[in-house]
Amino acid sequence: MGEKTFIDWLRGRIRLGPNVPVGPGDDAAVIRPDGEVVVTADAFLEGTHFPADAPPARIGHKVIAASVSDVAAMGCFPVASFVTVGFSRARDEAFVRELGEAMIAAAEKYGAPIAGGDVTSWDQPLAVSVTVLGETRGLRPVLRSGARPGDRIFVTGSLGGSLSGRHLDAEPRVREGIFLNREAGASAMIDISDGLSADLSHVARESGVGAVVREAAIPVSEAARALEKEDGRAALRHALDDGEDFELLFTVAPDRAEWLRGSWSFDLALTEIGEITEEGVFIERPDGVREKLEPRGYEHRWRE
Amino acid sequence: MGEKTFIDWLRGRIRLGPNVPVGPGDDAAVIRPDGEVVVTADAFLEGTHFPADAPPARIGHKVIAASVSDVAAMGCFPVASFVTVGFSRARDEAFVRELGEAMIAAAEKYGAPIAGGDVTSWDQPLAVSVTVLGETRGLRPVLRSGARPGDRIFVTGSLGGSLSGRHLDAEPRVREGIFLNREAGASAMIDISDGLSADLSHVARESGVGAVVREAAIPVSEAARALEKEDGRAALRHALDDGEDFELLFTVAPDRAEWLRGSWSFDLALTEIGEITEEGVFIERPDGVREKLEPRGYEHRWRE
Repeated sequence: MGEKTFIDWLRGRIRLGPNVPVGPGDDAAVIRPDGEVVVTADAFLEGTHFPADAPPARIGHKVIAASVSDVAAMGCFPVASFVTVGFSRARDEAFVRELGEAMIAAAEKYGAPIAGGDVTSWDQPLAVSVTVLGETRGLRPVLRSGARPGDRIFVTGSLGGSLSGRHLDAEPRVREGIFLNREAGASAMIDISDGLSADLSHVARESGVGAVVREAAIPVSEAARALEKEDGRAALRHALDDGEDFELLFTVAPDRAEWLRGSWSFDLALTEIGEITEEGVFIERPDGVREKLEPRGYEHRWRE
Repeated sequence: MGEKTFIDWLRGRIRLGPNVPVGPGDDAAVIRPDGEVVVTADAFLEGTHFPADAPPARIGHKVIAASVSDVAAMGCFPVASFVTVGFSRARDEAFVRELGEAMIAAAEKYGAPIAGGDVTSWDQPLAVSVTVLGETRGLRPVLRSGARPGDRIFVTGSLGGSLSGRHLDAEPRVREGIFLNREAGASAMIDISDGLSADLSHVARESGVGAVVREAAIPVSEAARALEKEDGRAALRHALDDGEDFELLFTVAPDRAEWLRGSWSFDLALTEIGEITEEGVFIERPDGVREKLEPRGYEHRWRE
């Protein structure tokens, strides 16, 4: 399927809203944004971001979900996605179509239909790049740099175990991110892609603050516990360092924390794990001893 | 150079204007667009879009220039670029830095500084993806679909010869595109990436019209003439089919054509090559005979 064929195929399949007056097929798409625009771009490379034998439907889902997750972490509304795909000629047409269908479905599900892109075959492994645009609709984007000493640190869902394939089923926390922005006034937010230890360090660094998290409070996933049995690495370490959880890590002012605990109605765990401090990022063991929390997350999990 | 290192390096180098309040380093960049937003995304793959031995500075220039060219072809103002890069570990750090410097310089030159992206090493050839955002600033974007019978067809610059490496030195016609939109009221516009024969067919198809171009009027480049001596293929065919000229092909209403000829003050050739008709895309030979103009452009020139 050449680029032109793909664009034609795509045009017949996607449904664009009135905020995307021009979609695939021209030199550029046209977006009519409500407010400011947030933009995120990520590459997904075979053997690095997904294994070579991953099913195309799961790859397609992941590349969109992981990208939309960045818009969720800004507390903004996804609007449109743009994908470029370089795929090996050794892949059959069914592979490319399933990949495309999964991307189209995921992008529509999260409110960011595919509005453009480009498909090329080459003699190399699959290389996908995804750009997602979001809009603020009158809200301010939640940055990594807004955490202040005394703010409470929360995380959604449970962490760890992406290594066992969980990353392919990522669910971006779009509605939760908007709620945390608009209703809870989150002061800083990030999605957990590098791992809690690394992403908390990013927030601390960008905000010029420190943090302490309580070991006993970390929501360790079942997948992390299962992995501990396989590889002998503590489930807690998986939860701290595995990354690609695509859960939201965020901070709220102390006076908003109690309101948030009482108002959270999503079918997703919400856990308060610690507090923003003046400096240094620490983990507090159950016996009260604080240890430095080193950012040990990998950037790229699937390096083979 | 890992992703984080690259982002840090990038942050120290780029200068973002007030319309990009948040650049690299957060989950997403933030753009404060003036008007509607136009978005284009393209992949550039080693061995397909540039030869493996191309110097990194020329690759970096090309990937930005070719992408910005799509915004120019909408007659809009470039605002920001986003790049993802997957590069082989066999490339040394100097290669990656030169590539990055060239992308940064080109993006700034064309008014679309790099505001985000992602860099990953893998064991495969270079895969770059570029997304460029533009804004309308009160203008309407010039689509491929606006050509009407009687409109005159123009092209900027000279055509053909990209195969000899000319495509690596592409210059997007940004100021010209804005002028043609705002001052000349271009009815349809496209940048020549697939080749004049193919891109004129795109305009005809999207506009639901036909076209006739005069063979004698086609501005054949020196590079196309030089190639004819090498490969025996007529220079005219190179000009019609080579593609990757990144010149603007556009139409204007008949009553604007004369004004345009008299008002063109750019240091770049402007050539009227034909006229929009009811249907069918033809080329008129010097003896007056009309032949069907088949879209013979390749999508990807550098397939090895």
